Amino acid sequence: MKLYEFAPAPNAVRVRIFIAELDLEIARVHVDTRGGENLSDEFKSKSVNGLIPLLELDDGTTLCESVAICRYLESTVATEHSLFGDTALEQAQVEMWHRVVEFQGLVPAMQAFRNITGLFKDRENIVEAWGVESRLRLVEFLPTLDQRLANSRYLAGDNFSIADITAFSMIRFIKLLKIELDDSLPNLQRWFEQIAQRPSIKALD
Amino acid sequence: MKLYEFAPAPNAVRVRIFIAELDLEIARVHVDTRGGENLSDEFKSKSVNGLIPLLELDDGTTLCESVAICRYLESTVATEHSLFGDTALEQAQVEMWHRVVEFQGLVPAMQAFRNITGLFKDRENIVEAWGVESRLRLVEFLPTLDQRLANSRYLAGDNFSIADITAFSMIRFIKLLKIELDDSLPNLQRWFEQIAQRPSIKALD
Repeated sequence: MKLYEFAPAPNAVRVRIFIAELDLEIARVHVDTRGGENLSDEFKSKSVNGLIPLLELDDGTTLCESVAICRYLESTVATEHSLFGDTALEQAQVEMWHRVVEFQGLVPAMQAFRNITGLFKDRENIVEAWGVESRLRLVEFLPTLDQRLANSRYLAGDNFSIADITAFSMIRFIKLLKIELDDSLPNLQRWFEQIAQRPSIKALD
Repeated sequence: MKLYEFAPAPNAVRVRIFIAELDLEIARVHVDTRGGENLSDEFKSKSVNGLIPLLELDDGTTLCESVAICRYLESTVATEHSLFGDTALEQAQVEMWHRVVEFQGLVPAMQAFRNITGLFKDRENIVEAWGVESRLRLVEFLPTLDQRLANSRYLAGDNFSIADITAFSMIRFIKLLKIELDDSLPNLQRWFEQIAQRPSIKALD
């Protein structure tokens, strides 16, 4: 297997954390997305969404979309706890919290970043006012995570899950938007510092 | 179990189709989201994201997020094929196509609708230029689905899946944005007409 990625991108970060949690080693291929390497016909023939990360299996089958890649990778190893939840209810709760983090956290973070910085204005129309609005909604969302973590060890319950991985990657990324976890978010701060000690995070390069 | 919903919303539609595919009957509770009923403290205490649909289990446990609800519901019944895929690779392919449809289809559709119509301007800031841009990106995305359906019976492969349900609900919804499947999208047209014949779709009210 080979993982095509642009290492600093939050979607690449969350897949690398997931891989380290599974104790897998996978060859990585650098794709210069900032320079537009993912816009080539060759890359687009492999990736439905034209984005990294992209997983290529040994038989040439390719999978894009971070969460699809994680789901497939977990199926290849035995784990004590699934990062997608064990029981049917836990799986639903992981899905719920993961989607809340994605739709109210990661999506606005990406839209804020792209529309405020204009990093990809060579290939997409930018609406700066939407970037500003997205950043605002993201800041207003963080207390939801803080309140949850006042009553729960991890976002989806007692076990570390992909919801924590995505939330951690998102919070690490939004420093670029000058959003820091201040003292109004004590539970989120504590959780973030605790997650940062995991070997899978310390191994990030 | 009880399902809280606002029937015309695309997320409510896709969960109702999913429920009908499973041959389940679940009591439905109308929530007047247009009138802001979901903004009440009572509703917010049940729903992490403050949105419909919301599933309440008999023990009072609640689940929001459409896909989390679908995942839980499928676990309560025996099915020949899972709507989330059977083998590990199929599950990853369903996840991939479902997320492509959500992030490049449903998300822009919702953002276009809310920002162009201003339907919720009593409770959120509107950026009309982003609505227009989102509509444009959505129109540019539809050929990806058409090309896929030139070579595949359903979006994720040989079996009908949640990716088809979400795509169908999205295409039904974007008529409100004056986007129709014209003759430049013959495969998508054919697939849409075929899906529309399923009993789960005909049962929609």
